Amino acid sequence: MKLSGGVEWALHCCVVLTTAADPVPAARLAELHDVSGSYLAKQLQALSRAGIVTSVQGKSGGYVLTRAPELITVLDVVTAVDGSQPAFACTEIRQRGPLAAPQEACTRPCAISRAMAGADAAWRAALQAVSIADLARDVDEDYGPAMFAGVRAWLGGPGGGDAPGGGDAPAG
Amino acid sequence: MKLSGGVEWALHCCVVLTTAADPVPAARLAELHDVSGSYLAKQLQALSRAGIVTSVQGKSGGYVLTRAPELITVLDVVTAVDGSQPAFACTEIRQRGPLAAPQEACTRPCAISRAMAGADAAWRAALQAVSIADLARDVDEDYGPAMFAGVRAWLGGPGGGDAPGGGDAPAG
Repeated sequence: MKLSGGVEWALHCCVVLTTAADPVPAARLAELHDVSGSYLAKQLQALSRAGIVTSVQGKSGGYVLTRAPELITVLDVVTAVDGSQPAFACTEIRQRGPLAAPQEACTRPCAISRAMAGADAAWRAALQAVSIADLARDVDEDYGPAMFAGVRAWLGGPGGGDAPGGGDAPAG
Repeated sequence: MKLSGGVEWALHCCVVLTTAADPVPAARLAELHDVSGSYLAKQLQALSRAGIVTSVQGKSGGYVLTRAPELITVLDVVTAVDGSQPAFACTEIRQRGPLAAPQEACTRPCAISRAMAGADAAWRAALQAVSIADLARDVDEDYGPAMFAGVRAWLGGPGGGDAPGGGDAPAG
């Protein structure tokens, strides 16, 4: 079982956007995280389609969160990037073979499917219990306030707000 | 996020093996479930490597569970077939880019990684709380005792215990 790698990138971007004073271009987010700009752009588009971020147009354009980070759960981001399909896909094996259960006896998911769905629900509940604001607070506690201050300074520095580029200038 | 399709097949096989009076050849399990024999054989080999089933050699050979179904969890089977890697792979993005956190500040997993690990733990705990015996009891309750009696009769019928084949004989 594997989540799309884009989930990690998207979550990091959302945490960064909680601290940004202005919209942040996709290329600037890619530069900050040292990841592929084109692949990150796809994750940001997925977040945008899900209504988690929106793209502000213009010279100082870029991405912003659409609502308070307290109102965005980790599950929202995971679902936006990785989809909402459960990990376990039941193919109704019970309705196959020489002893196939008749369709009318299969109105309820089978026991195996129910067990897997229960685990899926537990996983989603855990992800829904954590907000982007929680993550940002944890990051702040892990590294101290200098970390986000550094990110804000870097985002406001050369290349900041300069959609869609960000350039190659080293930032500090 | 997607689990290997083999998980479903392996769980169904384990439930069937709880009711079998004798070892069941792989081909017979494939026939019963109307699934690919070669792909199912791979899942049974994975279960065997994990010590969940063992292959009994000889004319009446086939697969048996190695222990009471109360002692085999759904998580055991999922891990045997799909591996034990967590769904979320942290690539330590925080240590990349112009504001990379120094390695010595990263002894503990980052907040995002911790949130994802918490959800993974919830998923595993839910799967660990259900045993193969639980599934078998649920199946019995869903369809009544005639279902497992039918499986036992079919397994003991033409092709039963006839490793590794099972033949093409229709079974009733």
